[in-house]
Amino acid sequence: MRDIQNEFDPRKTPLQKVGVKGVRYPVTVLDKNERFQQTTAVADLYVNLPHNFKGTHMSRFIETFHKYHEDLTMKRFLEMLEEIREKLSAEKAFGCITFPYFMEKKAPVSGSSGIMEYNCSYEAEVSLAECGQADPESLAAGKGSEASPSAAGDTGPSVTRKFYISIEVPVTTLCPCSKAISEYGAHNQRGTVKVKLLYSEFFWIEDIIAMIEGCASSPLYSVLKRRDEKYVTEHAYENPRFVEDVVREVYIGLKKLGFAWFSVECTNYESIHFHNAYAYAEYNGN
Amino acid sequence: MRDIQNEFDPRKTPLQKVGVKGVRYPVTVLDKNERFQQTTAVADLYVNLPHNFKGTHMSRFIETFHKYHEDLTMKRFLEMLEEIREKLSAEKAFGCITFPYFMEKKAPVSGSSGIMEYNCSYEAEVSLAECGQADPESLAAGKGSEASPSAAGDTGPSVTRKFYISIEVPVTTLCPCSKAISEYGAHNQRGTVKVKLLYSEFFWIEDIIAMIEGCASSPLYSVLKRRDEKYVTEHAYENPRFVEDVVREVYIGLKKLGFAWFSVECTNYESIHFHNAYAYAEYNGN
Amino acid sequence: MRDIQNEFDPRKTPLQKVGVKGVRYPVTVLDKNERFQQTTAVADLYVNLPHNFKGTHMSRFIETFHKYHEDLTMKRFLEMLEEIREKLSAEKAFGCITFPYFMEKKAPVSGSSGIMEYNCSYEAEVSLAECGQADPESLAAGKGSEASPSAAGDTGPSVTRKFYISIEVPVTTLCPCSKAISEYGAHNQRGTVKVKLLYSEFFWIEDIIAMIEGCASSPLYSVLKRRDEKYVTEHAYENPRFVEDVVREVYIGLKKLGFAWFSVECTNYESIHFHNAYAYAEYNGN
Amino acid sequence: MRDIQNEFDPRKTPLQKVGVKGVRYPVTVLDKNERFQQTTAVADLYVNLPHNFKGTHMSRFIETFHKYHEDLTMKRFLEMLEEIREKLSAEKAFGCITFPYFMEKKAPVSGSSGIMEYNCSYEAEVSLAECGQADPESLAAGKGSEASPSAAGDTGPSVTRKFYISIEVPVTTLCPCSKAISEYGAHNQRGTVKVKLLYSEFFWIEDIIAMIEGCASSPLYSVLKRRDEKYVTEHAYENPRFVEDVVREVYIGLKKLGFAWFSVECTNYESIHFHNAYAYAEYNGN
Repeated sequence: MRDIQNEFDPRKTPLQKVGVKGVRYPVTVLDKNERFQQTTAVADLYVNLPHNFKGTHMSRFIETFHKYHEDLTMKRFLEMLEEIREKLSAEKAFGCITFPYFMEKKAPVSGSSGIMEYNCSYEAEVSLAECGQADPESLAAGKGSEASPSAAGDTGPSVTRKFYISIEVPVTTLCPCSKAISEYGAHNQRGTVKVKLLYSEFFWIEDIIAMIEGCASSPLYSVLKRRDEKYVTEHAYENPRFVEDVVREVYIGLKKLGFAWFSVECTNYESIHFHNAYAYAEYNGN
Repeated sequence: MRDIQNEFDPRKTPLQKVGVKGVRYPVTVLDKNERFQQTTAVADLYVNLPHNFKGTHMSRFIETFHKYHEDLTMKRFLEMLEEIREKLSAEKAFGCITFPYFMEKKAPVSGSSGIMEYNCSYEAEVSLAECGQADPESLAAGKGSEASPSAAGDTGPSVTRKFYISIEVPVTTLCPCSKAISEYGAHNQRGTVKVKLLYSEFFWIEDIIAMIEGCASSPLYSVLKRRDEKYVTEHAYENPRFVEDVVREVYIGLKKLGFAWFSVECTNYESIHFHNAYAYAEYNGN
Repeated sequence: MRDIQNEFDPRKTPLQKVGVKGVRYPVTVLDKNERFQQTTAVADLYVNLPHNFKGTHMSRFIETFHKYHEDLTMKRFLEMLEEIREKLSAEKAFGCITFPYFMEKKAPVSGSSGIMEYNCSYEAEVSLAECGQADPESLAAGKGSEASPSAAGDTGPSVTRKFYISIEVPVTTLCPCSKAISEYGAHNQRGTVKVKLLYSEFFWIEDIIAMIEGCASSPLYSVLKRRDEKYVTEHAYENPRFVEDVVREVYIGLKKLGFAWFSVECTNYESIHFHNAYAYAEYNGN
Repeated sequence: MRDIQNEFDPRKTPLQKVGVKGVRYPVTVLDKNERFQQTTAVADLYVNLPHNFKGTHMSRFIETFHKYHEDLTMKRFLEMLEEIREKLSAEKAFGCITFPYFMEKKAPVSGSSGIMEYNCSYEAEVSLAECGQADPESLAAGKGSEASPSAAGDTGPSVTRKFYISIEVPVTTLCPCSKAISEYGAHNQRGTVKVKLLYSEFFWIEDIIAMIEGCASSPLYSVLKRRDEKYVTEHAYENPRFVEDVVREVYIGLKKLGFAWFSVECTNYESIHFHNAYAYAEYNGN
């Protein structure tokens, strides 16, 4: 049977990315309290395509993902990409999976239990670097980019990896300006903080979420009894935060944790406007 | 050329609706202040299909919509459906278009001008009623359903029409419970009120929007200077509203306006939860 | 602490539905092959609110859902609604959860395994019916509506239940008209079939999905090797289907299975248009 | 009245972007055939915030956008950003508006007229560059980045601008592999081509769309009569294209047109899978 994808392409146009997008799958990820968590993901998986090939073989992406989906730790995710890269004879493989991550959370006064959802994603790239040829982009990325240790006598090509984790945390923000200028009350609203972190050493998503929630006017909760609602309302009023404040506090928190590269953004679904307020900051070692 | 759609279908299975969905088009609708407003719409257009036909002719829906899109008053929308019904030799035609409707709005103290968007839709049905045979469903719907006036000597079949208008109004709601139990502050958030109205006599969308905005803790604005923000913050604090309150106030307002059938719903994007609060009421003449 | 929700409301306006919307939670549902499946859901939970109460107590919905989320069979879902109804002293409770349901599926020739996602929902209503007072709406719904068995001597009120299951199945459809009039080829596309079924006796979601996939030009697959792609391409070309055909075939299939009420719709993401083709049919016992 | 935003911030954390997001507005853009087109947009507008300021003044973004919305040519869009930058005393301003762009299109054989929608966006950045200090990023961007002409004797700071236009074009793609290996038929589907172009000299969106549509298996149409459907079906079968092919053909077309930087991506909503096929390429002058 003819293999058109494998045929020669004369157009001299390499493609940075080809692959599959929007693959919906159940996945199992690590969980600090329960060891494992079963959740549902959407995956995008790509490789680069050299100019001389007509197409890629899309089914191989799914076959490899299928092998790994029941144990998708960060480490396994990189192994999966490396396997995809090899199976498709490519120099680079890219992958992104997005999934809701669930955590039980107790109300601040009553202790009532409910579950909160945090959207997370893993995004990674593995690249073949020719021996003796440094990849300038990966060097620039600092700590998070590590060449695989080449043991003495290893004559094979080395592989460069980058791994990012994104976490979205819904929060309450109460406007400092509204509080300062009004006789009583202050507009407040749901907001979303999103961080993207270059991975270098293991951390728990749970710890990042707790730090971020501490930077807002208040965390959100799944269940709040009346005494909790009183606490949360007053706590938010005592801790007014602009989107600018939330981003700066999270930025300082992530810097302390030693990430070599990260970005932070906060979007407020303004209670007094039909548009959103937004702030963004990025850290790259300087 | 063979016309498969027109062929006989032996499965004895009539279809309530067949047609086109998600048709994106520029449209022109009425505007109280500017006379006409050019906006963009998504349309769904259907007819019923008797059991003996294999399929409908999808292109005729678009051809007819194309003829009408530059002047889509409520009256013209019904004429369009009637034309679709006839062209497709059907007993019923259904149509729904959804479009953002824009209104200029001044800030409450500074008078600064900005534009607000309100999502609206027209939804209608025209049905052929056999002479001497009343359509029980259309009678039940009361005032909004009107048989076309059959002039003396008119021997043709009469047509029954129903026309609904939906309007979505974003608002601020401030929680009465949170205000009552807290020393200071009160959680508030953006909410959306959606009404669906059975049309019987002409009204302006603008007037319904103004009534709805008056039922919330505060309207939303596009531009607010600091003195406006102070006013809006204090005004919301003085007018706490649950979703239940907003729905009841709008319900009472619509009943006064004489609509024979309507529904009201309010969804609050709770600032202290990651889920929404919701209330719904429906009026059908009792 | 003041309980505002519990206070008297003078507006004489009962609300059909009040509650929480968009609650995101992990859930465990039944699985034909694996016994249980852990997936992720979005839930809407409501009760009716009599005119004399100012508001409902939103936290009780989440507390009850939290108790049940780890074992959400159809039976337990109804028990949960009954508990919500009682806890909120309401006459009616309503619930809808939507979740992706995953099934392993083998390619038709190579037998390669992949996972397919089907969006499903449970939607139900439990109502308190006064003794000796039949609920006309529930009677009309036929088999799917069952009064709770009142044992001899049971003096309590009886409860009426309705339970619907919706299943979305993505399929391939190939246009019979395009095939008939063209020298070669035929436009085809991804479509979605959605059925909503009134539940009366236990069935497996898996069996409904298999029946629906058999009504389209071809099922979709997660992994297809080249020999599978040849098979699927030729199979679809041999089985052209309009949206009208798919809906009629599924309708006939569901009627045979004995459902007392159901609806079927099919939406085609037309490959030659930027809008969709659509058909809908409903069965209510006649 | 206290101006908190203007107060000193001690956290030494500058923010790359602060502003408003999701602003929905009617806008007027250029149209090749009709001179002007009224459509609806969603806008994001930002400036950078130096570390020493606590916040930005969100209302000024909307006030400036309001002034410009009725005449948003590419040139005016840059002038608007420059005004936002100055009003907020920032070094940089960023803006992105996304809008559906409508074009009338005739069916290929019958000539029947319908309207097609293409999602477009303008994305731009204006930066203050200190005199004698080149902005390395803007130099790298080549032709599209132009310092404002500094007249002799002009002692003021120069401004650097970047302007990108994105256009999304829905197309039909027919799979070359499926055609080659099957006895008859070939799977085909709707796909979306998205290009992002660094602007240097004026062009018409219409011309780019026509070029892109010529690179797919077939353009999409709003209205197709049966003889058009025959033509389109056969034309697509004669012009099979992978996502890889579409991206390469568009890449070659854009390179010929002389753009200094661009990206092309194609996403296929595969008719035989529940996931999408994807390809991406980027050109930066090499």
